[in-house]
Amino acid sequence: MLPGESLLDGARRGAIPLASSCGGSGTCLSCMVRIEAGTAPAPSAADRLLFSAKLLADGWRRACQVWPTEGCSVLVPPRSSGAQAVRTLAGGDVRITPDPTVRTWRIRLAGLADDPARGLDDRLFAAINGTGPARCQALDVDALRAAAALAGREPAKLLAALRLGELVNVLPASRRALALAVDLGTTSIGAFLLDLRKGHTAAISQAGITNPQVSLGGDIITRLNLAVREAGRRQDLQRLATGGINRLVAMLCGQLGVPATDICDVVIAGNAAMVHLLLGLPVDGLAHAPFSPALRGAADLRARDLGLAVAPGAGVHLFPGIAGFVGGDHVAALLALETRGLAGSALLLDIGTNTEISLLHAGTILTVSCPSGPALEGGEITWGMQAAAGAIERVALDGGVLELQTIDGAPPEGICGSGVLDIVATLLRGGVINHRGRLQAGHARVRDNGPAREFVLVGEEERDAPAIVFTQGDVRAVQLAKAAIRSGIDMLLQAAGLDEAQLDQVIVAGAFGSYIAIDSAVAIGMLPDLPRERFRQIGDAAGLGARLAALSHPHRARAAGIAREARHVGMAGSAAFQRRFISRINFH
Amino acid sequence: MLPGESLLDGARRGAIPLASSCGGSGTCLSCMVRIEAGTAPAPSAADRLLFSAKLLADGWRRACQVWPTEGCSVLVPPRSSGAQAVRTLAGGDVRITPDPTVRTWRIRLAGLADDPARGLDDRLFAAINGTGPARCQALDVDALRAAAALAGREPAKLLAALRLGELVNVLPASRRALALAVDLGTTSIGAFLLDLRKGHTAAISQAGITNPQVSLGGDIITRLNLAVREAGRRQDLQRLATGGINRLVAMLCGQLGVPATDICDVVIAGNAAMVHLLLGLPVDGLAHAPFSPALRGAADLRARDLGLAVAPGAGVHLFPGIAGFVGGDHVAALLALETRGLAGSALLLDIGTNTEISLLHAGTILTVSCPSGPALEGGEITWGMQAAAGAIERVALDGGVLELQTIDGAPPEGICGSGVLDIVATLLRGGVINHRGRLQAGHARVRDNGPAREFVLVGEEERDAPAIVFTQGDVRAVQLAKAAIRSGIDMLLQAAGLDEAQLDQVIVAGAFGSYIAIDSAVAIGMLPDLPRERFRQIGDAAGLGARLAALSHPHRARAAGIAREARHVGMAGSAAFQRRFISRINFH
Repeated sequence: MLPGESLLDGARRGAIPLASSCGGSGTCLSCMVRIEAGTAPAPSAADRLLFSAKLLADGWRRACQVWPTEGCSVLVPPRSSGAQAVRTLAGGDVRITPDPTVRTWRIRLAGLADDPARGLDDRLFAAINGTGPARCQALDVDALRAAAALAGREPAKLLAALRLGELVNVLPASRRALALAVDLGTTSIGAFLLDLRKGHTAAISQAGITNPQVSLGGDIITRLNLAVREAGRRQDLQRLATGGINRLVAMLCGQLGVPATDICDVVIAGNAAMVHLLLGLPVDGLAHAPFSPALRGAADLRARDLGLAVAPGAGVHLFPGIAGFVGGDHVAALLALETRGLAGSALLLDIGTNTEISLLHAGTILTVSCPSGPALEGGEITWGMQAAAGAIERVALDGGVLELQTIDGAPPEGICGSGVLDIVATLLRGGVINHRGRLQAGHARVRDNGPAREFVLVGEEERDAPAIVFTQGDVRAVQLAKAAIRSGIDMLLQAAGLDEAQLDQVIVAGAFGSYIAIDSAVAIGMLPDLPRERFRQIGDAAGLGARLAALSHPHRARAAGIAREARHVGMAGSAAFQRRFISRINFH
Repeated sequence: MLPGESLLDGARRGAIPLASSCGGSGTCLSCMVRIEAGTAPAPSAADRLLFSAKLLADGWRRACQVWPTEGCSVLVPPRSSGAQAVRTLAGGDVRITPDPTVRTWRIRLAGLADDPARGLDDRLFAAINGTGPARCQALDVDALRAAAALAGREPAKLLAALRLGELVNVLPASRRALALAVDLGTTSIGAFLLDLRKGHTAAISQAGITNPQVSLGGDIITRLNLAVREAGRRQDLQRLATGGINRLVAMLCGQLGVPATDICDVVIAGNAAMVHLLLGLPVDGLAHAPFSPALRGAADLRARDLGLAVAPGAGVHLFPGIAGFVGGDHVAALLALETRGLAGSALLLDIGTNTEISLLHAGTILTVSCPSGPALEGGEITWGMQAAAGAIERVALDGGVLELQTIDGAPPEGICGSGVLDIVATLLRGGVINHRGRLQAGHARVRDNGPAREFVLVGEEERDAPAIVFTQGDVRAVQLAKAAIRSGIDMLLQAAGLDEAQLDQVIVAGAFGSYIAIDSAVAIGMLPDLPRERFRQIGDAAGLGARLAALSHPHRARAAGIAREARHVGMAGSAAFQRRFISRINFH
């Protein structure tokens, strides 16, 4: 530890992944740890209010509120770890005609004897253009380096990877060229390794991790504000994003036992904020209304431009977005949806800190973005956590008896997004919250903790650690989130002149959306009350879209078409939105 | 100093530029220094043979032969400095139609009010494509970063730099977009700053410096061998090359008081070895027969790929070469020559460690490369040095009286290339060397230094420092060089079926070629004995070619045409070359 440095800052400096939803400002509980050995420094005033005397004596502190002066040993509960493995949902497999942006060709490179005055570049051009339909007009210098490492005086059999007429990588003929598709989310990053010659989107291997940026803030807004305030933090956020993708590359290639330089093309789908932070673009425009991005359309770079640990000449394609807060991840989800043969009028929801909703109707796409806040992902919820082992994901209240279901059946550690939704719906049904969202005194598990009322899910005595509670403030956060989403749906329906009963399908995409109980979402009024068979939860549609674009150039082009055609109908700031929002705050 | 480290290695580590022709192997005199204060370590056995007792006592040593064990103060004579300013010869000014690869357009970027959901990228596309003939299909991410730094909520007047339909840089409208043309030579680097809108090749500012790679070896072969042996040295050589260009950028932009990011395009002409070292390409193929390059054709990169300190999205165009040892610098010189309205049969010579010669005759270009060695540039000549202050450049022998002319009239420090040629011609005319190249005993200034005979140019007593001599070995080096060049000329004439008397012009390009006395070159038989009015010395033609390609896309395309059309007729290794070479060793 450096003098005057908090435990959280020390962990950040040492690249020890520690969650920090609020970015270290001391307003959340996400960085809670237990000092196990060594002298626990005296608790801060804020921590003294937060933890009981027993817990303080046991060493419980928040990492952002501890400034160690000597060495100590710290237990990081799973919930406070910023490096949890997260569940991934592949989002289905689709058959396509193989026609990738990067195509590979087996070539026979002539040896030196032919005409030594010619360069290796001349021999590569001759080998590629001489046989079959491949056409190469340019060589990336890193592809030339790769070829030089493989070519000798004798003829050689090689695999040439061409991106739109430019040689971008060269591999031994025995290998297969790979593509990487990335769903770069605010809370987690999913990555898929694909065989560039295959005609279906099933990944050879896939993995998901927490977005390492959570160590600098759990939600987009915290990170954007940090990036606006300090250029150094913007660089940190960029490094964390590329570091996360590189970690996934190492995991996926390690599983297969192939070098990462076999990856010849990369496609990334992310929201505008994630894309800006990844590219190191200024985010000032995104942090404030009217939320104007520096980059709205697609971008194409080289892997070396971003420091991605794949073939350095590999292309990196970033999905185009529709508007400031309707980014490439939503376009990727729309692209994936088009492969499903939709009929009638359909609603696509991508629920997160910012919720993007599209209405597909009569051949048009209408889109809205709603500032739903991080509550539904477990962020800004006192005991919120990621969808990892120990997260409470289902709740039932049978009379006075509370039943909790956690991920992997592990001891409860916190509450993930689907749990948050379920708790509110359950408490609402049980009358523990009224229609205005007030927690009702009188229930055995409702208590007043100073001025704040809270519902106890797991008592301190039940787990020998701080009690897991759901506070009045948490209920309010969910109310704001559901009101924002439902207002967005209202605006789309109005713009299309539709009634909600006319919706043929309501498709909920994304990891969070796939785990929620639709009944709960309807119960709290977040989704319209339609026959349940009209709802579909399709998993990581953005990831599927990224995979489609990695394997099929026509699909990549279609994504640009979707981004161009979609009409953005509403912004959070508009008066129309505000009116609806207020009318949707209450539970019915 | 690190333990066991020589003074030379210490200087390299500390980035103190010290000449080292032989790369530190102890076979030359280029790193000679004088230890002025502190204890001079005992001289090495090799230095004891080289320096007189008085000079050793005065502290004279070679930096590669001293391993200091304590601090000492060292005088670096100008000749031993690796960072001399060198003479540049602009190579003439040519008027052209302005049609650069990177074109600039004044644009009016809309403010945020128009449609905030659009991105800055959308606004840039609209501003560029909306007015006039400019067409922009893609944005480089660094151009977007530059635009984001200049754009605000209000409309802005900007300068957009487009490279073949892609936005590569954005500047305030008040600035002018610049191009950088570089002649990347083995011994020196020349750089020219150009206004991209101008229709003539005169530079706004220009400068030349010693190629910083001389600290790792004076000639190409030494550096190539170093790069082949040690990957770390290859990286050092790359860093030195980019560092040299960046130093020139800082000098040129400093002179004008403009930021280096105003440079939107870069063109570099260099021989194959320089280009390979700059790009970090493997040089194994170049270091050994049959001298096959990894890259023969042109290359196009981004400035950020090379770490050049200009606009990071700026294009970097490397001239195409003709064959392994006929590189882009010769193509650039040929391009420059075409602007001169040549008629008849002409010979173009680019004299250096490797001498490239082209015969332009009846609409064809025949080219040969000759391994002339570094002697004519002063390398591998015992007292050779760069064309800097104190270099002996002219010699006259009137009876027994020797007259020396040095650059800037400074006290003699060594001999530059033109001096080397002049000395041999003068000694030949005076009968001090016979027609077989042997130094004749009997002349007052000829002495036997152990087994080696030498001609004393400046005695030890005349300068209170080691005597400046021209040795028998130096004469032999010049014989090999002139034989190589003359054999190349012979081969070209034979291939074209021409007699040397039919040559209408003999054009000598390059800094060295511009300073030599044609009479001396003819006297030693390096050049054919033709009427003197047929000879022309045109200065830095490669630099002019680079400037043409920076300002005119058609000229850039023409360079590719020259590289494609030129026929490479001879290699050093061929039997035909060897026969001629032997017949040309003697002086008549």
